[in-house]
Amino acid sequence: MLITGYSHRFHTNTHDPSGITMQTEVRYSQQPELRDAVMVCGLPGIGSVAWLAVNHLQKELKAQLFAEVYSPMFSPKVWLSEDGVVGMMKGEFHYWKNKDGGSDLLLFTANEQPYSPEGQYELAEVVLDLAAKFGTKRVITMGGMATDRFAEEPKIYAGATDVELVKELESLGAVKLAGGAITGTNGLIFGLAKPKKIPAICLLAETPGYLSLDANAAKAALQLASRMLNISIDLTALEKQAKENAEVVQKAKDLSHSFPREGRKGGERELPYVS
Amino acid sequence: MLITGYSHRFHTNTHDPSGITMQTEVRYSQQPELRDAVMVCGLPGIGSVAWLAVNHLQKELKAQLFAEVYSPMFSPKVWLSEDGVVGMMKGEFHYWKNKDGGSDLLLFTANEQPYSPEGQYELAEVVLDLAAKFGTKRVITMGGMATDRFAEEPKIYAGATDVELVKELESLGAVKLAGGAITGTNGLIFGLAKPKKIPAICLLAETPGYLSLDANAAKAALQLASRMLNISIDLTALEKQAKENAEVVQKAKDLSHSFPREGRKGGERELPYVS
Amino acid sequence: MLITGYSHRFHTNTHDPSGITMQTEVRYSQQPELRDAVMVCGLPGIGSVAWLAVNHLQKELKAQLFAEVYSPMFSPKVWLSEDGVVGMMKGEFHYWKNKDGGSDLLLFTANEQPYSPEGQYELAEVVLDLAAKFGTKRVITMGGMATDRFAEEPKIYAGATDVELVKELESLGAVKLAGGAITGTNGLIFGLAKPKKIPAICLLAETPGYLSLDANAAKAALQLASRMLNISIDLTALEKQAKENAEVVQKAKDLSHSFPREGRKGGERELPYVS
Amino acid sequence: MLITGYSHRFHTNTHDPSGITMQTEVRYSQQPELRDAVMVCGLPGIGSVAWLAVNHLQKELKAQLFAEVYSPMFSPKVWLSEDGVVGMMKGEFHYWKNKDGGSDLLLFTANEQPYSPEGQYELAEVVLDLAAKFGTKRVITMGGMATDRFAEEPKIYAGATDVELVKELESLGAVKLAGGAITGTNGLIFGLAKPKKIPAICLLAETPGYLSLDANAAKAALQLASRMLNISIDLTALEKQAKENAEVVQKAKDLSHSFPREGRKGGERELPYVS
Repeated sequence: MLITGYSHRFHTNTHDPSGITMQTEVRYSQQPELRDAVMVCGLPGIGSVAWLAVNHLQKELKAQLFAEVYSPMFSPKVWLSEDGVVGMMKGEFHYWKNKDGGSDLLLFTANEQPYSPEGQYELAEVVLDLAAKFGTKRVITMGGMATDRFAEEPKIYAGATDVELVKELESLGAVKLAGGAITGTNGLIFGLAKPKKIPAICLLAETPGYLSLDANAAKAALQLASRMLNISIDLTALEKQAKENAEVVQKAKDLSHSFPREGRKGGERELPYVS
Repeated sequence: MLITGYSHRFHTNTHDPSGITMQTEVRYSQQPELRDAVMVCGLPGIGSVAWLAVNHLQKELKAQLFAEVYSPMFSPKVWLSEDGVVGMMKGEFHYWKNKDGGSDLLLFTANEQPYSPEGQYELAEVVLDLAAKFGTKRVITMGGMATDRFAEEPKIYAGATDVELVKELESLGAVKLAGGAITGTNGLIFGLAKPKKIPAICLLAETPGYLSLDANAAKAALQLASRMLNISIDLTALEKQAKENAEVVQKAKDLSHSFPREGRKGGERELPYVS
Repeated sequence: MLITGYSHRFHTNTHDPSGITMQTEVRYSQQPELRDAVMVCGLPGIGSVAWLAVNHLQKELKAQLFAEVYSPMFSPKVWLSEDGVVGMMKGEFHYWKNKDGGSDLLLFTANEQPYSPEGQYELAEVVLDLAAKFGTKRVITMGGMATDRFAEEPKIYAGATDVELVKELESLGAVKLAGGAITGTNGLIFGLAKPKKIPAICLLAETPGYLSLDANAAKAALQLASRMLNISIDLTALEKQAKENAEVVQKAKDLSHSFPREGRKGGERELPYVS
Repeated sequence: MLITGYSHRFHTNTHDPSGITMQTEVRYSQQPELRDAVMVCGLPGIGSVAWLAVNHLQKELKAQLFAEVYSPMFSPKVWLSEDGVVGMMKGEFHYWKNKDGGSDLLLFTANEQPYSPEGQYELAEVVLDLAAKFGTKRVITMGGMATDRFAEEPKIYAGATDVELVKELESLGAVKLAGGAITGTNGLIFGLAKPKKIPAICLLAETPGYLSLDANAAKAALQLASRMLNISIDLTALEKQAKENAEVVQKAKDLSHSFPREGRKGGERELPYVS
């Protein structure tokens, strides 16, 4: 963190400015200027689809870290790097400037989803508040739809904040999400964008449910997103990981027919399930 | 929503006006002028009695949506329409102008009851606060009393904020609710009206408990309410749904004698149970 | 409630004075002037010792209701009287003027203890805040110590906020509570009085644990309290109820040797148990 | 408490200064002037390593109590001394002036860790806020790493807020904590120090896991800490307790090979476990 610019303080519980309880806080190290920003959100969830996708984008595009969110709504734990250095549970915001005149990107991801409903609402609010500050034109959330089958070309199901956006997604090859519900922070960021008048979409990639890191599903979701944004993204790293997964799955299939159902973390769609 | 008029902000957790955490919020699209308003509340509960009744009123009277309540106290999920368009968990307020000189109506219902006790208290407070703003003269809450028997003419049990009101309800054919307790948001709206000096009643229609949508119980509650308000309401749609239920129940009775007890969601009366 | 004097508002969660969320609130109908006030607290707990004692005092002394406390920390339910009239879960404060020159009394009891730890702390704080406002000289909390034996003359165990007070209680016949812990609101009112510099005591009467309303234990606790306060209290009603309990217990003993252990609600002392 | 200096009020929930709900509060009896302060934190956890270490320091150095922290985040219970005097659940801050020109010490410990995640974050924040007020140069947290073996010379694993500090710890004989996570308040105090720019370390001593009071592990952690601080501490009392533990363990080993796994309270490291 080069410069601690300024912080948005949320959830202040005290009148005493000097004695402030732990609050959900966004800390900025930079204040980038973004044009026609599109935010892509990727919290951990089923198949880690969104998380894989956003992390891939961040690496491929060399997106720059500019803000972090800390919150008592994350699990009360700290983690250690291989160097023995401590880190907090947090969320990170990266940005990428588009040199071809198209939308700049805002990327958001975190170690985990908050465990409580109130925490999930709070984090969704924080993320959308930052999106609005940067004049975000569109929010893209992602997730996995557990289908119990391993597809070479996972279908992408999509919902949006308005009908025209749904049609645009169908023209790009997505299948309309007709009915059902999506739980968790990814769903809340998607749904809360509507009353805030920020167009938003949710892309749900088919995933077997037994893969905790489904790179193939992440790749499929990114392919559609990149077509929508007209941004060219090298998906080689994801394809490689997907191939390794496929080999593992094949070996396991040769051994057995039953796989444990992945625990669903957030973004869980009811009948049928999505995340 | 044509015009976002103004919002009542509840449960603000911050001093920073620009960075506001998700709060329980009523968003108005209109500011209707109402005379001698009576509010009818219908949250989901046992037999969905109140919910069916208020939804029926809204359709038959063509009541107009004028406000919505959003809250982090609702479940952290979003739903999708058949069009693939996202919506938040919320409550809705509709109004109807009475052309015959009697009370105008305020109708309130929601996707669900908040899951936490604090959330139930908060929503009840929000609803009554809005009722007070519109000079509401009487609040009517409804629910089901699970009796494990299927009655063609369900009895209506009633309680009120004062003895005269109880007598009025008895004169209309209700049976006095003597003793016991009512849990959940419907009960809290009813009980909290008393210290706020808004006369309120609770109508509990007998319901078998195994019908998740008891149209016959809803119809019985509405009949009494319409007599009290001297408002004529066409109950055909509910009667039709009730008849279909009866046929289903008869078929099931021919097959078996035991039915699963409906899970009680709110408005649950202790010994005997009501909701 | 003759006059709604003024309210102490606790736990305000909003900046908007017109839109106030449900809060813990004390509503005064009177502002009595009290001299050398002693507060006696009696929330429901094991054997309902404190609750029986305070209710008995209120009836015998014809103590006057002067304030009520409403809170979203109570269960989300409402109750109905035999008249069909609704009431909220609440706490009540009564006062009694001592015509013999000794301490006036403040009595506090409630339908129930808040179910959450935060609610228990909050209610304890509210009660002590009111005690301080009336210049309370001593706070008496009570409870039951489950001993699994039925004693004709239950022992009274006692703790206090300072050693001199413990000695005073021992001189009145109480057994010193040496070590252990007391859980629940009764314990918190007792313990929180200490940093607030209000002398407080806790009287725990032996109770078998299987009596949900142990009038004999309540009587024993009241006898010690009345000696301490030099106030004469007619205990006939409690003695009558105690005698009826004894007959029931005897009959049951003749039938069986094992009794279910009473669920402990608050005021639970660890090894050995007290409440 | 000689002088109630001033209080830091956290988590205020009201606008009404006269009616204040129970809040997390630090009450000062003194305002010591400290130079180059180092804070050592010892909340109960696995093996009670930190708690034993800090209590030992407090006794050996005759550190002075200067502040206490009360909070509704602690369990809703009170405890009684052998004298029958009541006490609240709380945390204590002691200080020691270093006469040899080295760092003064700030010691923090508490009866227990808050049971809720929010409570753990809040207490960590309160502790670090006090540390900052006294210009603390370094925070030392401790804990146990459950290894299921009884070591005569327990290894000390260490992490820190920056790489140089990790190297310093390795030069003192600690083993670098590479990877993993630490849960609970001890971990949060450690991790939250980083964004607050207070250098912090965490020392985790090997402990079998079946000793609830592992004096040998506490001794090992203190030895490293005293070398780091260049403060000479007499460890006799801990050695004596450690020897008694060893004898008990040996006797038990002679009887059986299986020991129940200690319940992990806070400071729990994931694969492998530490606390």
